[in-house]
Amino acid sequence: MHTEPIHPPSRLLMGPGPITADPRVLRAMSAQLVGQFDPSMRAYMTETMTLYREVFRTTNEQTFLVDGTSRAGIEAALVSLIEPGDRVLVPIFGRFGQLLAEIAGRCRAEVHTIEVPWGQVFEPDMVEQAVRRVSPKLLAIVQGDTSTTMCQPLADIGRICRDNDVLLYCDATATLGGNTFEMDAWGLDIATAGLQKCLGGPSGSAPISISPRAVEVINSRKHVEAGIREHDDGARGTRIASNYFDLAMIMDYWGSRRLNHHTEATTMLYGARECARLLVAEGIDHTVERHRRHGAAMLAGVRGLGLSLFGDVTHKMSNVVAVEIPAGVDGDAARAAMLNDYGIEIGTSFGPLHGRVWRIGTMGYNARKDAVLLTLAALEQVLRARGVEVTAGGGVGAAQEVYAG
Amino acid sequence: MHTEPIHPPSRLLMGPGPITADPRVLRAMSAQLVGQFDPSMRAYMTETMTLYREVFRTTNEQTFLVDGTSRAGIEAALVSLIEPGDRVLVPIFGRFGQLLAEIAGRCRAEVHTIEVPWGQVFEPDMVEQAVRRVSPKLLAIVQGDTSTTMCQPLADIGRICRDNDVLLYCDATATLGGNTFEMDAWGLDIATAGLQKCLGGPSGSAPISISPRAVEVINSRKHVEAGIREHDDGARGTRIASNYFDLAMIMDYWGSRRLNHHTEATTMLYGARECARLLVAEGIDHTVERHRRHGAAMLAGVRGLGLSLFGDVTHKMSNVVAVEIPAGVDGDAARAAMLNDYGIEIGTSFGPLHGRVWRIGTMGYNARKDAVLLTLAALEQVLRARGVEVTAGGGVGAAQEVYAG
Repeated sequence: MHTEPIHPPSRLLMGPGPITADPRVLRAMSAQLVGQFDPSMRAYMTETMTLYREVFRTTNEQTFLVDGTSRAGIEAALVSLIEPGDRVLVPIFGRFGQLLAEIAGRCRAEVHTIEVPWGQVFEPDMVEQAVRRVSPKLLAIVQGDTSTTMCQPLADIGRICRDNDVLLYCDATATLGGNTFEMDAWGLDIATAGLQKCLGGPSGSAPISISPRAVEVINSRKHVEAGIREHDDGARGTRIASNYFDLAMIMDYWGSRRLNHHTEATTMLYGARECARLLVAEGIDHTVERHRRHGAAMLAGVRGLGLSLFGDVTHKMSNVVAVEIPAGVDGDAARAAMLNDYGIEIGTSFGPLHGRVWRIGTMGYNARKDAVLLTLAALEQVLRARGVEVTAGGGVGAAQEVYAG
Repeated sequence: MHTEPIHPPSRLLMGPGPITADPRVLRAMSAQLVGQFDPSMRAYMTETMTLYREVFRTTNEQTFLVDGTSRAGIEAALVSLIEPGDRVLVPIFGRFGQLLAEIAGRCRAEVHTIEVPWGQVFEPDMVEQAVRRVSPKLLAIVQGDTSTTMCQPLADIGRICRDNDVLLYCDATATLGGNTFEMDAWGLDIATAGLQKCLGGPSGSAPISISPRAVEVINSRKHVEAGIREHDDGARGTRIASNYFDLAMIMDYWGSRRLNHHTEATTMLYGARECARLLVAEGIDHTVERHRRHGAAMLAGVRGLGLSLFGDVTHKMSNVVAVEIPAGVDGDAARAAMLNDYGIEIGTSFGPLHGRVWRIGTMGYNARKDAVLLTLAALEQVLRARGVEVTAGGGVGAAQEVYAG
């Protein structure tokens, strides 16, 4: 068999993520490797920790990368905190809340869930009542659930968890960098993300930050593995069910001991470092404002095309919009036309929303005016070709007004 | 804080891995992203599966990538096969055998181990007796354990496992591509690897191959996650303790259903595909022979410098050699001189061998004549500077004789 070198087609990825990577991130990832205990590698790891503290808005010493996709970060957080039988409360407002409950279940937690209909977020009261009723060790929640595009306010939930001595985990994969996120000010104990959304990189590395009180819980379960352990490690507490996701050991790897665990995925680290470096250089507030601005332009644009939005728009994530597919239009066929004729990817939806809404993202490298206007211009053509009545120039015009305003 | 763009120092990585990546792999990884369900992405995934079937020498349909380092591949294999209480037999001949026992323990297996002293491999009889005594569901073994540089012959162990209806897992991280490996001919059920050794890529993607009978065991435990599950999935068997490493779900993601699981680490996939593409283009037999040749030159070279080797050299992996540190030499200081004065990394050792042996690799992109000769030339200088009596040109000369021969 003869296989050609990689040569992907040109794409503008305007779905809910992954999105087109920032070319500067890909260039950083093309740098040659160094050894995992090379002084330069140690420096890169330390810099990466410092940079992600700024991204997460935290002073947490334990801020680093888990080597895997964003889902790996979620599992590392949950499996390291949850001991079998622990009560875990998961407020679910979309597919990724379901995922947290699913993973907590595999960690053998006693999982309790509360739910609001897709397209809504939780009021603090509802969460507070559930916390009092369940008295969980951990509350696990998504900040932005791309399945519904909703962004859950977290400040009150942070306060509720502190008041009730509950650990608070947040999956910030889809929001970090593009929406306000305040690890310390909101009182979060552990948060994880991925590179492939607002951070503008490829999937495959999961930034994580852990509060001192969560570190204490995790380290109470530390069992250094045989082959590395040099003497009795004073292990106590239930051993963490995963070796790869054992945050106690991963903290020793990233910490001053640099104790061998996995072999760090150097190229992904280069990429994750560059994502954070670019964000910090731009200024987190500026990046969040950029996402707000281009998200608002896209929202105005799809409305200008005469399309309706799904869900509670006042609680929408800045970086993705859920658009109702017009009656009579085959949503997947229209998406295929966007991709095949214009090279632009927009997103389909999960479960109850499949065939009902498209999800259009404006994030990371693609939170840009030309990306927004091109997408609206192409969408207008695709809708018209399918017999949808659209005002000529209505989408682009409405977006331009946002930019002009 | 201002952080500079990535700019690693020039290094020739001649340790036990990770090693200098093939520049063609890094170039492939700089390609722009496509969406995870883009037709081109599906094609790249399918091609990657086909290529790794050639690398693993197998017809196993289920041959794909786990998104994480080589350790992620190990854990995915073990957690997906092992149900709590299952008996698992681990023959240990180094640090990575210990790791297999450690991970199997976290999967709540009843772990049985047999051991030979570091520097030796197992005779088939010893394994067969243990299999009969323990009657395990699974035997887990490393092919090449870089901690000792030993390469365990596997054909007889494969036969023993088939005869006794035992599943056989092999960690081929350190050997695949550089030593003969025959998934099907040896009767292996599941094997995993990493890119950062003989495959010439960066750490962060774990190729895996699974035999039909292992697939059956894993699928008997399939529980599709809520949010993706469309109807009763006929789940039976103990649910796999990890979501991220649930090979039943990952097979559905890579298979024709392309059922959403994680977000594939596209850049790592580009790299993994290129590693295999280059290997297949060179021809697996040629690649193995190249490793044998340059490994033999390095071995002759260190002997030509008057150094002694550790362990049973007849069972050495082709791609790494363990060299006794001469009496009176501070091994870590000499390594630092190699790195700081010559830009060449050679490896330290784990546990009982730390301070006693260096490990020098010749693998992947660095299984090359110039890399071997440069390393020997620099090592001669470093040893002389530390008062070791070395024959001038003895290392390079002995290696050249191998190349001439």
